Amino acid sequence: MTFNIDLNSSYIENKINDLEKLTDEDRPYTRLVFSEKFYEARSWLSEQFNLLGLSITTDEAGNLIGLLKSKKDTNKVVIVGSHIDTVPSGGRYDGTAGVISGLCLIKHIKENNIELPFNLAIYDYLGEELNEWGTSCIGSRGIAGALNEDILSRQNSSGQILKEEINKIGGNAKLLNKPLPVIKNILACLELHIEQGKILEDRKIDIGIVKSIPSISRFKVTVTGQAGHSGTILMNQRADALVTASEIITFVNKLALKISKNSNQHFVSTIGKIDVHPNSAAIIPGLVEMTIDLRATSQNSRQEFINTLEQKISSINENNDCKIKMKDIAFAPFVEMDKELIALFKKSSDSLGFSSNIMNSGAGHDTAQLSRVAPAAMIFIPCKDGLSHCPEEYAEVSDIAKGTEVLYNMIENLANLSLT
Amino acid sequence: MTFNIDLNSSYIENKINDLEKLTDEDRPYTRLVFSEKFYEARSWLSEQFNLLGLSITTDEAGNLIGLLKSKKDTNKVVIVGSHIDTVPSGGRYDGTAGVISGLCLIKHIKENNIELPFNLAIYDYLGEELNEWGTSCIGSRGIAGALNEDILSRQNSSGQILKEEINKIGGNAKLLNKPLPVIKNILACLELHIEQGKILEDRKIDIGIVKSIPSISRFKVTVTGQAGHSGTILMNQRADALVTASEIITFVNKLALKISKNSNQHFVSTIGKIDVHPNSAAIIPGLVEMTIDLRATSQNSRQEFINTLEQKISSINENNDCKIKMKDIAFAPFVEMDKELIALFKKSSDSLGFSSNIMNSGAGHDTAQLSRVAPAAMIFIPCKDGLSHCPEEYAEVSDIAKGTEVLYNMIENLANLSLT
Repeated sequence: MTFNIDLNSSYIENKINDLEKLTDEDRPYTRLVFSEKFYEARSWLSEQFNLLGLSITTDEAGNLIGLLKSKKDTNKVVIVGSHIDTVPSGGRYDGTAGVISGLCLIKHIKENNIELPFNLAIYDYLGEELNEWGTSCIGSRGIAGALNEDILSRQNSSGQILKEEINKIGGNAKLLNKPLPVIKNILACLELHIEQGKILEDRKIDIGIVKSIPSISRFKVTVTGQAGHSGTILMNQRADALVTASEIITFVNKLALKISKNSNQHFVSTIGKIDVHPNSAAIIPGLVEMTIDLRATSQNSRQEFINTLEQKISSINENNDCKIKMKDIAFAPFVEMDKELIALFKKSSDSLGFSSNIMNSGAGHDTAQLSRVAPAAMIFIPCKDGLSHCPEEYAEVSDIAKGTEVLYNMIENLANLSLT
Repeated sequence: MTFNIDLNSSYIENKINDLEKLTDEDRPYTRLVFSEKFYEARSWLSEQFNLLGLSITTDEAGNLIGLLKSKKDTNKVVIVGSHIDTVPSGGRYDGTAGVISGLCLIKHIKENNIELPFNLAIYDYLGEELNEWGTSCIGSRGIAGALNEDILSRQNSSGQILKEEINKIGGNAKLLNKPLPVIKNILACLELHIEQGKILEDRKIDIGIVKSIPSISRFKVTVTGQAGHSGTILMNQRADALVTASEIITFVNKLALKISKNSNQHFVSTIGKIDVHPNSAAIIPGLVEMTIDLRATSQNSRQEFINTLEQKISSINENNDCKIKMKDIAFAPFVEMDKELIALFKKSSDSLGFSSNIMNSGAGHDTAQLSRVAPAAMIFIPCKDGLSHCPEEYAEVSDIAKGTEVLYNMIENLANLSLT
């Protein structure tokens, strides 16, 4: 069954063009989980599942699933897919590429009347991107039993409670206190994603085969000072929360630079979200809230960062009129991908004549959650200039098609393994 | 005509209680210029003017005026009043104290059938607080001819154009290209205001008589970096606009501390407003916009600050992947109050047995604008802990009443001067 790269590229391109229209108009490309545009994109995706003749369900965690049932009487399932939500002002390929690749894969299988000895499911994992509830990977965490009541009860700034939103979209948050039953039947979870880095592009490599996904930690830092008039409070009488917050931002950046330089492991830390109150030019900031995002392959480096930052905060709290609190709000551990699936991906890629590289991921992915409860692995395709989480994000549709061909070859290999 | 402090205190208290209810509910006390609550407060104030039998007009600059006409055929006018708009999450006394003091003054004059040889006007100067259009003192700048087309054409974040808002509230922005005709007739502009500092409270002084108001400069600083994925972009490959913005915030704070320490003059600088884009925890900030607020009594100190900051920015632009632009968006010059009015205020205060202090203002005021085109002066009353522009702002109603008695004594003195 020849996989026609050109034909499949144009299918992929059409679907990307469809989805890119479903964005908040004033800030392309924005399709936040549970937003109006997200619901529209879910309807669009259900329609695609329908066109492919898949049976459609939403699981307890709110994941939208299209299922290609095997003619064999089996519960075993191979999962493909990714996510269709985006960050604010994000791109058109992060997540989307994996979902559309899954559609393309199933279209190819259907058109060629290929019979599989297992069910094949395409997932839109619910809310992979970090959201206002301070968590990411809602749907895949839900599958892995990694959502707890603390997370599920959180409210966003509009007062919406996470578990209620999950229920509204068709999930059942009550059943999320343990891994979902499906995990017993998973033969393999396979995700295609853009690299979001520059290694593949720089080295002109077709396929990245992911070896590990770093731990992700998020901390909420609150700096409390005293608001006051910007004209009347003398410089030496101030407790300016933004000035103290700036000290933390500078410190976090320098510390992360130092740790990443001293170790050969992937280590990054970012303060991307900051809210200043009351945020008015004529008022000394009285309160700053910000989120530290930390990604580490090495647990030692992670701990070194946290210890050093905590010491810095203690020292500021002793010597400064502003007071700082740091709270752990999210954690996903470092995980390694399934070794057999890595080897199979390598074999598939080689057999198709694609160059490949076994590599670490910098970003977190739904597959990191799935890998805690099932055999899971993922492949990267190149993206332009390593840019992601921004409107400039770009990938060639032919590269997505190549990755889809690797997925198809994997499915064939897994089918052969299941039959033997 | 004895001025009864107790009776007038309870009148003042009632009016403060009325106005404090007119706030955005989710963030007391907030009554931003042109907002729904601001319009409600203007209606309330018109009603108060009506109750006192004043004739009501709105001038070309959108100032709401209640006029007590003299029985004499004269155009001469003494102006009292202040402003009823607030900063976001501000207080209940800044501006409001001066407007309510004016109401109380006129009530006293009316109740005692005092005839004046000049008209007495109470002004609610339009939009004294810094607003989204990047300017403050809209109404008083309008009187002084200090609004220009650049300012009047600015849009806020909802796309509202300043001049259209001025017209909507009853002004006529076309006529604001020069000082308003009223300035020829002004005998004196007198404003009562809370000190917004701690000097009067600390030294247990009843009345502050303002000698000067510092220059106010505002600069918009834009830091442009490159947004990207917080997990995949390596620490040494980043152009993080927030990290560079933090360097500026720290620098501005240290520089202002140093200049204020080295000079005996009032000198403060604040970054109170910062907008980070896209402001999401998993995205490296690509753009930061912030406003620098600068208040200086000495022009030399102001220039030293600007020159040093510009050098710092040039140096960052040469050595950093982020690029910084600084733009001058507002300026009000240093002004001195009318010397004869200062002396008269001192005489009034002394004659009533109040302790007083001739002092510099830290904050800007409508009177600074008026002083450019007419004899103008102002008095301060104490406020608790020097706090202002925050919900904790507090002043004793008896202190507002004492200040009102000084104003009344001033009116008497001015009347005597006019008659002789």
